[in-house]
Amino acid sequence: MAPALELLPKPAETVPVKAVPASNGTSTSTASLINFESPEKHQRVLNVFRAFIADLVQQYGDGHPGSPMGMAAIGIALYKYVMKYSPKNCNYFNRDRFVLSNGHACLWQYLFMHLVGVESMTLEQLKSYHSAEIDSVCPGHPEIEHEGIEVTTGPLGQGLANAVGLAMASKNLAATYNKPGHEVVDNMTWCMVGDACLQEGVGLEALSLAGHWRLNNLCVMFDNNAVTCDGSADVANTEDINTKMRATGFNVLDVRNGDSDVVEIVNALIAARSSDKPTFINIRTTIGIGSTMAGTADAHGAALGVGEVANIKKAAGLDPNEHFYIPDDVYDFFRDIPGRGKDLETEWRAGLVRYQEEHPVVGAEFALRVAGKMPADWTKCIPRKEDLSTASAASRKSAGAITNALGQSLTSVLVGTADLTPSCNVAFKNKVDFQSPDLRTTCGQTGAYNGRYIHYGIREHAMCAISNGLAAFNKGTFIPITSTYLMFHLYAAAAIRMGALQGLQQIHIATHDSIGVGENGPTHQPVAVPALYRAMPNILFIRPCDAEEVAGAYIAAINATDTPSVLALSRQSLTQYPRFSSREGVQRGAYVFAGAKNHNGDGDGNDDDDDDEFDVTLIGVGSEMVYAMQTRDILYEQHNIKARIVSFPCTRLFEQQTREYKHSVLKPGAGKAAVVIEAYPSTGWERYADASVSMNNFGKSLPCKEVYEHFGFVPGVIAEKVRDLVEEVRAVGIVGLRGDFREFNGGLRVGLGH
Amino acid sequence: MAPALELLPKPAETVPVKAVPASNGTSTSTASLINFESPEKHQRVLNVFRAFIADLVQQYGDGHPGSPMGMAAIGIALYKYVMKYSPKNCNYFNRDRFVLSNGHACLWQYLFMHLVGVESMTLEQLKSYHSAEIDSVCPGHPEIEHEGIEVTTGPLGQGLANAVGLAMASKNLAATYNKPGHEVVDNMTWCMVGDACLQEGVGLEALSLAGHWRLNNLCVMFDNNAVTCDGSADVANTEDINTKMRATGFNVLDVRNGDSDVVEIVNALIAARSSDKPTFINIRTTIGIGSTMAGTADAHGAALGVGEVANIKKAAGLDPNEHFYIPDDVYDFFRDIPGRGKDLETEWRAGLVRYQEEHPVVGAEFALRVAGKMPADWTKCIPRKEDLSTASAASRKSAGAITNALGQSLTSVLVGTADLTPSCNVAFKNKVDFQSPDLRTTCGQTGAYNGRYIHYGIREHAMCAISNGLAAFNKGTFIPITSTYLMFHLYAAAAIRMGALQGLQQIHIATHDSIGVGENGPTHQPVAVPALYRAMPNILFIRPCDAEEVAGAYIAAINATDTPSVLALSRQSLTQYPRFSSREGVQRGAYVFAGAKNHNGDGDGNDDDDDDEFDVTLIGVGSEMVYAMQTRDILYEQHNIKARIVSFPCTRLFEQQTREYKHSVLKPGAGKAAVVIEAYPSTGWERYADASVSMNNFGKSLPCKEVYEHFGFVPGVIAEKVRDLVEEVRAVGIVGLRGDFREFNGGLRVGLGH
Repeated sequence: MAPALELLPKPAETVPVKAVPASNGTSTSTASLINFESPEKHQRVLNVFRAFIADLVQQYGDGHPGSPMGMAAIGIALYKYVMKYSPKNCNYFNRDRFVLSNGHACLWQYLFMHLVGVESMTLEQLKSYHSAEIDSVCPGHPEIEHEGIEVTTGPLGQGLANAVGLAMASKNLAATYNKPGHEVVDNMTWCMVGDACLQEGVGLEALSLAGHWRLNNLCVMFDNNAVTCDGSADVANTEDINTKMRATGFNVLDVRNGDSDVVEIVNALIAARSSDKPTFINIRTTIGIGSTMAGTADAHGAALGVGEVANIKKAAGLDPNEHFYIPDDVYDFFRDIPGRGKDLETEWRAGLVRYQEEHPVVGAEFALRVAGKMPADWTKCIPRKEDLSTASAASRKSAGAITNALGQSLTSVLVGTADLTPSCNVAFKNKVDFQSPDLRTTCGQTGAYNGRYIHYGIREHAMCAISNGLAAFNKGTFIPITSTYLMFHLYAAAAIRMGALQGLQQIHIATHDSIGVGENGPTHQPVAVPALYRAMPNILFIRPCDAEEVAGAYIAAINATDTPSVLALSRQSLTQYPRFSSREGVQRGAYVFAGAKNHNGDGDGNDDDDDDEFDVTLIGVGSEMVYAMQTRDILYEQHNIKARIVSFPCTRLFEQQTREYKHSVLKPGAGKAAVVIEAYPSTGWERYADASVSMNNFGKSLPCKEVYEHFGFVPGVIAEKVRDLVEEVRAVGIVGLRGDFREFNGGLRVGLGH
Repeated sequence: MAPALELLPKPAETVPVKAVPASNGTSTSTASLINFESPEKHQRVLNVFRAFIADLVQQYGDGHPGSPMGMAAIGIALYKYVMKYSPKNCNYFNRDRFVLSNGHACLWQYLFMHLVGVESMTLEQLKSYHSAEIDSVCPGHPEIEHEGIEVTTGPLGQGLANAVGLAMASKNLAATYNKPGHEVVDNMTWCMVGDACLQEGVGLEALSLAGHWRLNNLCVMFDNNAVTCDGSADVANTEDINTKMRATGFNVLDVRNGDSDVVEIVNALIAARSSDKPTFINIRTTIGIGSTMAGTADAHGAALGVGEVANIKKAAGLDPNEHFYIPDDVYDFFRDIPGRGKDLETEWRAGLVRYQEEHPVVGAEFALRVAGKMPADWTKCIPRKEDLSTASAASRKSAGAITNALGQSLTSVLVGTADLTPSCNVAFKNKVDFQSPDLRTTCGQTGAYNGRYIHYGIREHAMCAISNGLAAFNKGTFIPITSTYLMFHLYAAAAIRMGALQGLQQIHIATHDSIGVGENGPTHQPVAVPALYRAMPNILFIRPCDAEEVAGAYIAAINATDTPSVLALSRQSLTQYPRFSSREGVQRGAYVFAGAKNHNGDGDGNDDDDDDEFDVTLIGVGSEMVYAMQTRDILYEQHNIKARIVSFPCTRLFEQQTREYKHSVLKPGAGKAAVVIEAYPSTGWERYADASVSMNNFGKSLPCKEVYEHFGFVPGVIAEKVRDLVEEVRAVGIVGLRGDFREFNGGLRVGLGH
């Protein structure tokens, strides 16, 4: 479980070259043992490649031709000479990972995949780019569902952060499982970026971390064409990128002629393999090279025009009337490349057998990790209901106990925090930090690459985007956990969305949920944030009301192997409801929490437990359950009204239930009103309730108890409003409430809002 | 309107010192003409200040003491010696702006405000920090509503980006209005940051822009205490920040002893005033200095303890039993500071009178800007309905025409784009880019500081956070417009939220709305994003369906002077509905768009216009209106069903209408179903509709028409589902639909979602 640090492997060099890390900003490596094809041959392949791209974009008159054309020589260097991959089995475990962070350049990747022989990437499929074909493997941006695509990219900067996660995954697995003579994981991560990825905050955050962690198995290739949509890149950016990247902890290399000097590019890539830091290669290219629009924004995001496409071919010595032309000599160029293909995979598999014979225990564990499976006994990490304390506890603490157990027990669990270890309660006993073993901090904290506790710094967006990369390394091999305040998970919304879109399991621990965070005030009270995650497809947003529901939330999150989860947890202590709360109920999204208090003497001997006779349903959610339960008592004692309670931790899980189950919980036919009590906007609750006690404005800086009071979360006040509603429903029924959805909100923030 | 560039003022030096910009990374400036108090006196003030902070946090046992204590000497330098402000009128127009980006250190600002004599900041108010006092001017983070606070901060990195916006505002006003001998705007912007602001992506993006724009009126002061919540900052960050900041275009200065050397700090601040670049001062401080926890994370976010507070006082020679102690000599220290106070303001006002006499035209315009008022004729920028073309047009184009008119006509309108000039249609005729006049781009674009078109690069988050700063400079002086795809406004969600929280008017042009963006695929189709902005307090999320509604949306956005707006606009061409659409209707959020097609021969001579007799209401939204209208025809012609149409561009505006109006639109008492048709999740529509044609999954890479078809947006198909619903309602009524909310969705994305 915790191999000695000296086992950490150096990145292997597949191609036996003499490579010297550059220190002066230019590539001084040589690749003298590589059997390069001639410059003329390279130019021939470049010409055919670029003409084909121009044809592809021209056919439907839309798409991105410029970058794929400009990056062609980089592709030859990678796919022909450097990258370790297996085109007949793109999922070969120890393959190099490649991420196209500038995802709009996807035609570049698709065409190289075709040329090297990825089977699904046929000529016909290539031509389906931007067509109406529904199951095209060539969508407008690379999508993880398709063979050979590591992550879905497009929103800029995300892929770069994903690549950092993929490199971390390799580092962690290598440090955990490699043994002397057995380097079962030693792959590189290659990431193409354009100007945008280096401007986007999420990219900058991720780069800072890659440098800090000294991820020398990461190589970032900058397609420096100096052009963006608005013109030349220097319209909005004039920084000294090489110096900046050096200051960020990267080995920086320059490639002067990225348009055609394949050997220069290969030299730099090979040098990256032997660097002791992550490598940044600044590769000068020309967008749309070969066309008259070369070097301008006009070549970026539109078809070049029929005449221009013909001119490109003519200038390159190709027949302007021939379209989608790939001659045999170009196909031949990509055949039988050393260090690629089935042999590589066969060799790795043979090595794995020897490894497992020699190291049966970790070998078996590694096999489980490769298979993406959880050990069967993970459920032991979840405390049984009978073992839970009945003392009040913040749900962040209840969750912390489970995170602690998972962190200690499961090598697949990587626990991260955006600098909120003391607040989010995710640190686990005997944790080792994921750090370069060379790191010496001033506070004395150290770490190693087999560490599974990740200090992301104050970089929420990169935390979540990197977690996507960790989860995408090989599905199930890692379950990343992130942690910060729910408010700051909003910084990461675009990354969390990418996780949901790609079906990447991870658990976002989002503490300081609701307005109960208190004195930190409205900036830290995540009003409106839940609406986003409840509406977002393929994500579970779960607000447990006590420790038992926290256990249920964690079980749901772990069982959702193709879905990320957000667990919204309280800062403040919560009353525990051992008689009512149910982990099984959480799995169903909502459930009957408590029947109506009933004084009808129906002889069932339990005046708390009658779910059939009631006047109103109160829906309690998360930390606001206490207001629902207290209101129920007041309604019974002071207003002679019978209120049943529904706990509703997760709308998405509830929507997956049968109609019968939903009706048993909501009882829509009973003609009684339902009122949801939650310190968030009511958006979406209209589906389940007729009225709400909710927030229609931002919060306020007050202690927890007072901030709730300020916004009307006072059981006696709520009870009166519910009583009025019950009376109205008795008089006129439920019909006609549409358009009259009630919000029972308290004081408004002065001068703001409506 | 476009003064010559040579009028651009140099930043004024309030304190007459000889200041030399440093070039070697250390401050070499002198402030020899400043009449400094003695080091002993400074130490005395520091001691009292720190003890007071310790007392404040101790009283309720919660808060942030460490940074305010560590930053005390910086505060003396700023408030006593350098900053230009008027404590009796904190809103004096030409004041220096100060932003506390590390907002958790707010006690530092509150206490200095008290010491310099801001009237609302009484001793009693100071003590209300973290109390239950509802109207405290000392909330847990600085809030813009309170005197002397420029922007609300707390979410880290935001304040830094706001400061960039504030500095841009000054630059733009100075370049627009200053004349020789009349520097009516010449203020500096000072921004305190901690480690977090320099790690957060939004901060890094904003810094890149400040360097690019050469905002030499901006000084970023880094409270480098080397500690974050998780321990020493080097646990997550080991980059060379000074080199990085130099590479980003900053003048970088070092202060070695930020704990007590006030003179060293003042020297650096003075040097910042005369720099030709923005200045970054790396100030070494000790968090919690004076306590035994000094220099550790323990001093960050919790009370220090009663004993520790006593020890701090003893060590400083203060009485440990005296609490909240501010002796007269400390008050005296902050009295009668040159370059501060009423005189400064009086002098500026006198200068303004001379300016307006000499330059009556721009003087009058400037007065209007200072008053934060729009010229009365702004409405001329909005085309009249009768002048609108009836030809199909993308709503991004319809909006572009208005943006163009506003940009040309109104000096208060600053139009920005995150590198999507060609796509968002926000460029205006004869625009001048906001740029340093020294900038020479490779594509030949130039600019000047009086330019009002802003290239933010691919930095959506900074764009929106900087816009908050622009809007906060002086309410109404600027109306910032941002632009990018709606999808990428999600990158900026945390900043857009801060704009809403602060009531800062701005207009977010969010194009490529809905799934109609097409081939770019699910990464670019902003499913779920509207749910966030519809739930968010104090923001208008508006989806117009044609050019007339776009005009209405723009009018609503401009009239909402305390509220930001998001205008969600289509990439694809939209059918125009001149007979039906109404700008006035948009102002009310929703309206009856078309009565039911009616064949009852009721003699009104218009079989399209009967709103009383109908079978079902179809709610059409934005670019999906066309599906509603076509479905209405099919229902009438093929199914003998009368459908009325409601257009529903903005839920927030609708919620502000009277109950009577709402009922007239939704007709809840009619016992007929309503179906909303929108290519987003149905979240929130349950309030207005009984069923939806909507998206419950992410989108797909297909051409516009096909992607709609794929997800079931086909009028004939919709009509059949509506027919079934109408029949069901005829049979069983509306009652009982709760819990059965229908989603009529098309194909699901394979392997994802539920």
